[in-house]
Amino acid sequence: MADLLVTGKYLVSIDDDHTIIDNGGLAITGDTITAVGPADELRGRYPGAEELYEPHGLIMPGLVNVHTHAAMACFRGLADDLELMQWLQEYIFPAESNLTGEVVYWSTMLSICEMIRSGTTSFCDMYLFAAEVARAAADAGMRAWIGEVLYDFPSPSYGELENGFACCEKLFATYATHPLITITLDPHAVYTCSPELLVRLGELAREKEALYVIHLAETEVEVATCLERYGVRPVQHLEQLGLLGPGMVADHCVQLTGEEIELMAERGVGVAHCPESNMKLASGIAPVPDMLAAGLAVGLGTDGAASNNDVDMFGEMSSAALIHKGSRLDPTVMDARTTLHMATRGGARVLQAGERIGSLEPGKKADCIVLDLHQPHLTPLYNPLSHLVYAARGGDVVHSIINGRIVMRDRQLTTVKEAEVFGAMDRISREIGKIKGNRS
Amino acid sequence: MADLLVTGKYLVSIDDDHTIIDNGGLAITGDTITAVGPADELRGRYPGAEELYEPHGLIMPGLVNVHTHAAMACFRGLADDLELMQWLQEYIFPAESNLTGEVVYWSTMLSICEMIRSGTTSFCDMYLFAAEVARAAADAGMRAWIGEVLYDFPSPSYGELENGFACCEKLFATYATHPLITITLDPHAVYTCSPELLVRLGELAREKEALYVIHLAETEVEVATCLERYGVRPVQHLEQLGLLGPGMVADHCVQLTGEEIELMAERGVGVAHCPESNMKLASGIAPVPDMLAAGLAVGLGTDGAASNNDVDMFGEMSSAALIHKGSRLDPTVMDARTTLHMATRGGARVLQAGERIGSLEPGKKADCIVLDLHQPHLTPLYNPLSHLVYAARGGDVVHSIINGRIVMRDRQLTTVKEAEVFGAMDRISREIGKIKGNRS
Ligand SMILES: [Zn+2]
Ligand SMILES: [Zn+2]
Repeated sequence: MADLLVTGKYLVSIDDDHTIIDNGGLAITGDTITAVGPADELRGRYPGAEELYEPHGLIMPGLVNVHTHAAMACFRGLADDLELMQWLQEYIFPAESNLTGEVVYWSTMLSICEMIRSGTTSFCDMYLFAAEVARAAADAGMRAWIGEVLYDFPSPSYGELENGFACCEKLFATYATHPLITITLDPHAVYTCSPELLVRLGELAREKEALYVIHLAETEVEVATCLERYGVRPVQHLEQLGLLGPGMVADHCVQLTGEEIELMAERGVGVAHCPESNMKLASGIAPVPDMLAAGLAVGLGTDGAASNNDVDMFGEMSSAALIHKGSRLDPTVMDARTTLHMATRGGARVLQAGERIGSLEPGKKADCIVLDLHQPHLTPLYNPLSHLVYAARGGDVVHSIINGRIVMRDRQLTTVKEAEVFGAMDRISREIGKIKGNRS
Repeated sequence: MADLLVTGKYLVSIDDDHTIIDNGGLAITGDTITAVGPADELRGRYPGAEELYEPHGLIMPGLVNVHTHAAMACFRGLADDLELMQWLQEYIFPAESNLTGEVVYWSTMLSICEMIRSGTTSFCDMYLFAAEVARAAADAGMRAWIGEVLYDFPSPSYGELENGFACCEKLFATYATHPLITITLDPHAVYTCSPELLVRLGELAREKEALYVIHLAETEVEVATCLERYGVRPVQHLEQLGLLGPGMVADHCVQLTGEEIELMAERGVGVAHCPESNMKLASGIAPVPDMLAAGLAVGLGTDGAASNNDVDMFGEMSSAALIHKGSRLDPTVMDARTTLHMATRGGARVLQAGERIGSLEPGKKADCIVLDLHQPHLTPLYNPLSHLVYAARGGDVVHSIINGRIVMRDRQLTTVKEAEVFGAMDRISREIGKIKGNRS
């Protein structure tokens, strides 16, 4: 028995054998993929199943965005082209100090609309008012890893630090058995969290068997600050605190030495590569080819829309594939297969969810997307993987399925009322715009 | 009297004052913009005119793609992630040796479909069988600068070099008074053209008052070859031949010294910046911020789809804005305004067409596009220029007008039958795919 067949012109499975099936498809039962194969074979095997057939469709795993701050969509384009500290201190921090749970809920929902529309089915989020982030993801039927960001100073969300721990405990209790939402522990960074806080969260992460998500080695300034304060670089600082290990998701990792890469690989740390944000904020270009050569798990992330300015993983794949070639003067690095792997299975591995998502294989959760290939910019087609990385855009995704449920069909979202989201964002952005009005 | 009013939520004129008009629009009479202003005012002034009103629309000048090989769309994704010489010698050259005029016509038309759909209204093209490129552009109603590429060896298009000159003469004769097509003279590069050929084409360019389009200083290998052969770098080589001057469109210019930038600025040379192609082929990152500081005219180009792999100028703007920030560790370079200017007026200036296109001002040719802002990834909106560079994608363009004629309305092309193009490309790509079959 299958509830749904998804069929099309190509199925790109991202399995170990790099299988691509012409006129292929998959069968879904409940939340799980039960078969992958030629469409005709599936039709014969599951005669009663509903079929979502896209004649020019390419079926592939949903993209995994391993680092974002979804709610920051409310600050999209508020301020660009500025020095990081000016951007943070004059725009983002003042705006964030006025955040409310309601703003975070709707802004997250806005990002979710954009993510579904551009092929993302899972995301890992660090932000304030994480309960509202989780509520939005659950309402939309998105798969998400979500954490409340903690740091030494009081938070606009929970107030004093001690309340932050209570907030985390409540999140774990609420989502303990949720099929889509997984709670993480999120120290902001080594320069905003004391060693005590870092360690305490590490202990909690072990106790909860939760991911430990942290911005790490993002900028030269972070490295200099850490050296000055602790006499060691950020990675070594975490190592000395006994925190490097599997289950750590290290965001950005732009400023890494070769030794640090080796150490992180040894310890089993996962990395979230965010090339567009790193370029836009002028943090630099992360040494991703070296990380991959060392065997590090690397996934792809957009960071928040305030520093990107979108959460489109197709655009991010293209950027990732291009910048390393351009900066290393080597056209063979970050080839299409490597890049596509990073945006799917690589991300799943970083989130320690490789058994459940990241490829289209029987037994895995049914997270998949369908692109319409019948478009000038995807014509002709010699190699589907090449198009997915170098030519496709988020807008080419026509259907999306998460955990067996169709969340977008023919570019219509089925789980989110977009008109409500637009209405809420209209009110919210008017308030935020006043901050800008004061300054520019 | 006006034939057509185009109205929407914002009009971004790209004029000297950076005018943005809320609820603005423009009036078109024949092929020319006759008024720009608030929509209500235009409605009062031209009561009988047809109106193309997009409630959430942003109206802006059509994008100017200053360097492409449109017909190379037939090789899109044929081979990627390879060393330049392997890519050229094992894939592109063998494929090009089998080109016919018919293949070039349809492949150019394919690129034109993609260009119109992603907001480009003008392009500058260098390729084989240029008569077919010109025929496609004329049939589609696109504005284009088109040249037959010449080099020392026989061409798959015209055969012996002498025939190349006859071919150019015929192009000039055919398009002497065409409203949209301008013929250019296109030596391929300093390493494929003898000094005699370069000079002879320079003389012809002066005689015809035509643009002189050449790939220049694209790679380190080109510089080394030129140094070895002539004892000077490519720019100095052209200077010694008396060729640097206004009307030269120098494509790529990745490998320039500070002195060369100064010299090119002095001589009034225009530059076509192609960041995605330069990254994909690992040529490097052109010193564009330095060129702009020196006052050089710089436009934006996609290069051909074989090395990009699309001809989407919105994606190219985003890449241009991001890579210079990331590689220079300076978030203030290539800000949204600068980048947008490059893709419109900068390109017009490079093509010596600044009086006619590049901004929405009365008296200029009516080349404009309308984007639909009512989408999650363009919400909220604090600054239209930011969205155009950092968040918009080609697919957001809903209407396009070239020379006063609507060439796309509600994403339906009006001048090209796409089904015919898809049909032709299906046949053509099957033949080209055989080359790939022999090799991979
Ligand atoms: Zn972040
Ligand atoms: Zn070129």
